[in-house]
Amino acid sequence: MFDGLKIYGSGDYLEGVTDRDALFICAVATTETSKIPGITGAGASPELTEYTPAADVELIVHDAPRCLPEIPQTIVEGEAAPTPAVITKVALELAEVPFLVADAGASVKPDVPYININSESGGDIRTGRAVSDPERIYERGLMVGRTLSCLTEHLVVGESTPAGTTTALGVLTALGYDADFRVSASMPHNPHDLKREVVMAGLSNAGIEKGDCRREPFRAVEAVGDPMIPAVAGICMGSTVPVTLAGGTQMTAVCALMKAIDPEFDFSDTAIATTIFVAEDSTSDINRIADQIGDIDIYAVDPDFGAASHRGLHEYLSGSVKEGVGAGGAMLLALLHGVPVEMVRERIEELCNTILA
Amino acid sequence: MFDGLKIYGSGDYLEGVTDRDALFICAVATTETSKIPGITGAGASPELTEYTPAADVELIVHDAPRCLPEIPQTIVEGEAAPTPAVITKVALELAEVPFLVADAGASVKPDVPYININSESGGDIRTGRAVSDPERIYERGLMVGRTLSCLTEHLVVGESTPAGTTTALGVLTALGYDADFRVSASMPHNPHDLKREVVMAGLSNAGIEKGDCRREPFRAVEAVGDPMIPAVAGICMGSTVPVTLAGGTQMTAVCALMKAIDPEFDFSDTAIATTIFVAEDSTSDINRIADQIGDIDIYAVDPDFGAASHRGLHEYLSGSVKEGVGAGGAMLLALLHGVPVEMVRERIEELCNTILA
Repeated sequence: MFDGLKIYGSGDYLEGVTDRDALFICAVATTETSKIPGITGAGASPELTEYTPAADVELIVHDAPRCLPEIPQTIVEGEAAPTPAVITKVALELAEVPFLVADAGASVKPDVPYININSESGGDIRTGRAVSDPERIYERGLMVGRTLSCLTEHLVVGESTPAGTTTALGVLTALGYDADFRVSASMPHNPHDLKREVVMAGLSNAGIEKGDCRREPFRAVEAVGDPMIPAVAGICMGSTVPVTLAGGTQMTAVCALMKAIDPEFDFSDTAIATTIFVAEDSTSDINRIADQIGDIDIYAVDPDFGAASHRGLHEYLSGSVKEGVGAGGAMLLALLHGVPVEMVRERIEELCNTILA
Repeated sequence: MFDGLKIYGSGDYLEGVTDRDALFICAVATTETSKIPGITGAGASPELTEYTPAADVELIVHDAPRCLPEIPQTIVEGEAAPTPAVITKVALELAEVPFLVADAGASVKPDVPYININSESGGDIRTGRAVSDPERIYERGLMVGRTLSCLTEHLVVGESTPAGTTTALGVLTALGYDADFRVSASMPHNPHDLKREVVMAGLSNAGIEKGDCRREPFRAVEAVGDPMIPAVAGICMGSTVPVTLAGGTQMTAVCALMKAIDPEFDFSDTAIATTIFVAEDSTSDINRIADQIGDIDIYAVDPDFGAASHRGLHEYLSGSVKEGVGAGGAMLLALLHGVPVEMVRERIEELCNTILA
C-alpha cells in the first residue's frame, strides 16, 4: 500500500486514517527505574535519563533542547545515534500534523506548553511501589482522550519514557503475559536478564506472582509499571476516533492494560505503529506479545537508513535506539499524508547535519 | 441576527464563526491582588478567591468543585449569585463545543487535565512587581494558539482571574488608556476608588507613569498586570483562526497588550464576547475602553435572567457577578450553533436547582 511500510495484521485499520486530519500527542514520563545502570541507552548516563523526555520534546518544538546543552544521543559503541525525536520532528513537519506534549509524569518538565495529566514521576520498580494512584492517571487520560478526539479524526500517541520496556515487561508479566525475552531495548545488546531480575524483584516486593493482577490491572501498574502506561491507555480508551499507539513493545503493555480494564475492548480502532528496527529486531518480538492480547494491527515503517550518509543513523541498523518519541507513528503519518519515506529520510539527514556535530 | 444578542460594531466578524467548529479554552490565574479586602466578589472571602478558578473549571468538567466543598457564589447582599461557570457549562454542553483548561498561573491547580502555559501565580500589584517574565508567558501562549488553531475553525478564550478588572486597569493605565471608572466589577457597587488606589500604588512603586509602557508593553504586565493577560494575548496572536475573547473589561487589557506588542495588529479576526450585564453596566464602560484601542467588535448576550425562577440568577440583574469563565462567549457559541437563548436560560435554571441548595 505504501513504500517502506510493513503490515502485520489485516491492514484494515489504515482505511480509516488515510488522508484524515490527525493530531500527534507525545506522553512524557520518567521513573527511578531508568537510573539502574545498564538498563537503558536513552541518555548519556543513568542520571541524565531524567532529562531525555524533556530534551526530546524541546528539540521538536524549539529545534534544540533547553534543559540540556546537547541533543540526546545513544552511544553504546562506535558512532552516537541521534535521538528518535529527530525522526518524529521531521516526519510531523512534512505531514503537517500538529504536535502536543502531555506530561504523564516527567521529573524534568519540558520548557514547552504541555497538557498536565499527571505531575509525579515513577519510582524504582524493584521496590514494588512504582506509580501512585494509576487509576487517577488513567481517568485523567480518559478526559484528555475524550476532549482531543473532538478536535481531530485520528489521534497518534507517542511516548518518551526511558527504561519503558522494563516497566512494560513488569506490567505484562503481572497481567499474565509471556513477555520475557520479548521486550525491545534501546541498545544493540538487549539486557533481558537485568530486566527480568528487576521485574522479579518488584513483583516479589509487591507480593505479586505472574498473572495475579488480571482482575486488578491498576495494581500491576502501581507495583511494577510507569505513569505513561495508564495515561496513554486512558487517552486511547477515551477517544472517539481511531488511535495509533506510536511506539514499540511498550505499547503492548498499554494494550494489555486496556484489555484488562475492559475485557470486551475492541481493538479494531486501535493499532500500533513502530519502526522496522523494532518489528524486525532479533532480540525482541512485538508480534508474539501483541498476539496474546488481541487482534491488533502493527505497522512498521522502514526509513531505509542504510541509504543515509549520516553515520549516526547507521547505528539504528545495528540496533541502537530503534524507536521512541513516536518515531514510527510519525513516519506513518507522513506516509498517510502522501509524503514518501525517501523524503522523510533525506530531511532527517539534513536535520542531523545541521544540529549534530 | 440572533435573539438575545446585542452587537457593538460592524458585526462582520460573526460571519466567519457562525456554524463553524469551535474550541473553548478557559485560562485560569490568580494573584495576591485578589486578597485585598473589598476588591472582588469572586469568592466567599478574600482568601478563598484563590480557589475560585480551580473550582469553576472543576464544576464544568466534573459537575461539582473538588478543591472546595461548595459551588462558588457571590454574596454581597440578599441572595447568593451562582458562579458564571454554570452559564459556561450549560452553554458549551448545548453548543457541543469541547472545553479545555489552560493554566496561566493559578495558585490552586484544578483537578482536571489542563494545558500548562505558566505555573506561577501573580503577586500583589501594589508592590509594582506583579508577574514574573510575562514575555515568556506570552511566547508560550503563542505556541498554544498556533497549535490549537490547527485543530478548530474558531477559538473562544475565556478566563477566571479574581480581581482581574483591577489588574486590567493597571495594564490599561500603564499603556496610556483612559480606563479609570470604566472597568467592570463582580459586585453591584464597583469599588473604583480602591482599584485606582491599588493601581496607583503599584505604578508608583514600579516607577511608571500613565502611558510609560507604550513601547515596553511587557513592563506594564510585569508591574501591575496578571498572568492571564499575556497568556491570552499570546493564544490570540498565535492563532490562525478567528479568536473570540470571552470576557468583560479584562479582555480590553488583552487587546491593549496585543496592540502594544504589534501596533499593526488587525482586529478583524478578533472580537470580544460578553454578557449584557457587562455591556449595559452603568458602573463601567467596555465600549469606551475598546474604542481607544481599535476597531473591535463586541458581542453581548442577554440570557434574560429576569424570566428565570431561580432567585440567585436575579442577582445578576442587580449587578452581582456579571461575567466570568467566558460566560458571554459560551452563550454566543450556543447561539452560533443554533441553540436559542431561552433554552440556555432554562438549562441554567435546571442546573442551579440541581446543584445549588
